[in-house]
Amino acid sequence: MTNSNDTTAANEGHGLTPAEVEVRLIDTVTASFAQATDERLKELLTSLVRHLHGFIRDVRLTEAEWNAAIEFLTKVGDITDDQRQEFILLSDVLGASMQTINVSNQPYKNATEATVFGPFFVDDAPLIDNGGDIAGGGTGQPCWVEGVVRDTDDNPIPGARIEVWEADEEGLYDVQHEDDRVYGRAHLFAEDDGSFRFWGLTPTPYPIPDDGPVGQMLKAVGRSPMRASHLHFMVTAPRMRTLVTHIFVEGDELLTSDTVFGVKESLIKNFEQQPADAPKPDGRDLEGQTWSRTRFDIVLAPEGA
Amino acid sequence: MTNSNDTTAANEGHGLTPAEVEVRLIDTVTASFAQATDERLKELLTSLVRHLHGFIRDVRLTEAEWNAAIEFLTKVGDITDDQRQEFILLSDVLGASMQTINVSNQPYKNATEATVFGPFFVDDAPLIDNGGDIAGGGTGQPCWVEGVVRDTDDNPIPGARIEVWEADEEGLYDVQHEDDRVYGRAHLFAEDDGSFRFWGLTPTPYPIPDDGPVGQMLKAVGRSPMRASHLHFMVTAPRMRTLVTHIFVEGDELLTSDTVFGVKESLIKNFEQQPADAPKPDGRDLEGQTWSRTRFDIVLAPEGA
Repeated sequence: MTNSNDTTAANEGHGLTPAEVEVRLIDTVTASFAQATDERLKELLTSLVRHLHGFIRDVRLTEAEWNAAIEFLTKVGDITDDQRQEFILLSDVLGASMQTINVSNQPYKNATEATVFGPFFVDDAPLIDNGGDIAGGGTGQPCWVEGVVRDTDDNPIPGARIEVWEADEEGLYDVQHEDDRVYGRAHLFAEDDGSFRFWGLTPTPYPIPDDGPVGQMLKAVGRSPMRASHLHFMVTAPRMRTLVTHIFVEGDELLTSDTVFGVKESLIKNFEQQPADAPKPDGRDLEGQTWSRTRFDIVLAPEGA
Repeated sequence: MTNSNDTTAANEGHGLTPAEVEVRLIDTVTASFAQATDERLKELLTSLVRHLHGFIRDVRLTEAEWNAAIEFLTKVGDITDDQRQEFILLSDVLGASMQTINVSNQPYKNATEATVFGPFFVDDAPLIDNGGDIAGGGTGQPCWVEGVVRDTDDNPIPGARIEVWEADEEGLYDVQHEDDRVYGRAHLFAEDDGSFRFWGLTPTPYPIPDDGPVGQMLKAVGRSPMRASHLHFMVTAPRMRTLVTHIFVEGDELLTSDTVFGVKESLIKNFEQQPADAPKPDGRDLEGQTWSRTRFDIVLAPEGA
């Protein structure tokens, strides 16, 4: 039968320092992945465990803090549904999404830089012709966007698929409404010469959804939930690396404090303000509204670059 | 107006290597916590970001893998409710719970070692007298447990509150059933001489709930979901460090592969098997059943140790 002397002996006679006990645990946990047949999964989990345990050891995490972390993640899970993706927001505001973009889209020649995907893309956005309007009833100042899709040898990429999506002037995407309205999104295809053009809305700044646990975290550290004004692009073509990016509005005050760290200098574009009476590129009647125009020439890297 | 030459210039003329871009992002993200008035929160988030980004950089995380991680966490959130805590399971099987216990319960003299809390504790377990039965209708071999609660100077701690909880012989805790049944849990108080005693169930091995995303992860790496047989304790007393621990069953094959890494040598106890006709400590009639008995002497560290 075990008695209290045994407990003493085990605690004090084990010969391991607390640090050695902590390191031994990391070794035991990583060894538990030894049977994994998927080598990449083994690599991912081993590295994850080393960094996760490194964090716990560095900050000497308390049990109360661990409890708070579990509660926080539980709340992130609670608020997440088909319309709301709080895990992506969390990744975004910690810069983890942007870092993933950095490491998985290495610069290649003059290929256009990537930035964060965000939580508001949907798969089945309407098809428009070149010159069409993606606004779909969303409100805001009209904006003419044009450019050419090319490869890094300057050849046009006819038929490149261009997905665009953006918030309205209230700072809301269509999917943030309870109903099924669709606005501010479309897809179109580059012409034979690689060119594309469409009407959208001049991007305006907006807060990420901040009524959940991620918003509370931002408040707790005194951070703004605001995103710099931007227009989303995803461009795909056979044998080319998919480009997920935004363009940002030159002069926007939020360019240096974008809450998801998505701004890259090469993606800041001049959205040139136009008086109401300036001739429209396609002769459209804007009923006396002012408008803006910008140019975004897109360079795709080859697949596997 | 921006043209494609600007894009080229920004990509190639920026003078930063990809590694420098990655490091600069980490600096930008950690700088975003500069306004936090809670210094500990700032420290936690800064370290978290460094380790999280370190992980992403070390493994060169792909966007597909990032997507899979978001999906995985979303599933963990989906299955979590009042009855099921998949985030705790995840922390447990990655050894993060145990590492938190390690760093926040430094060894102190001969104080009893701590181990993981697990997801099955409930706050309002029934009160029993010393010598009472925690089984509460849960099935399994009866087990007599006795010991003394002392401080590290060998003084008894009268009135120490002892919470005990365990699974039944099917490997299920009461809270894993849909209904409100209560079994296999109770609390009692140490006597004036620090002693305590109760009837429970001889612990048996069981799998952690493995029908969710954490179970799928264990399968994917070829790991067993089994926990070594154990009986949970939480012991509290004024001015003493709260002890959360288990005792394990000597000879259990699973002691070396406990899926939450909770086993510590000092916590392995002899559960001595008794024939049906062995006299019971309290003369109880076990109706011809065999039984077991064990001893667990508990030493509490002072608060703040």
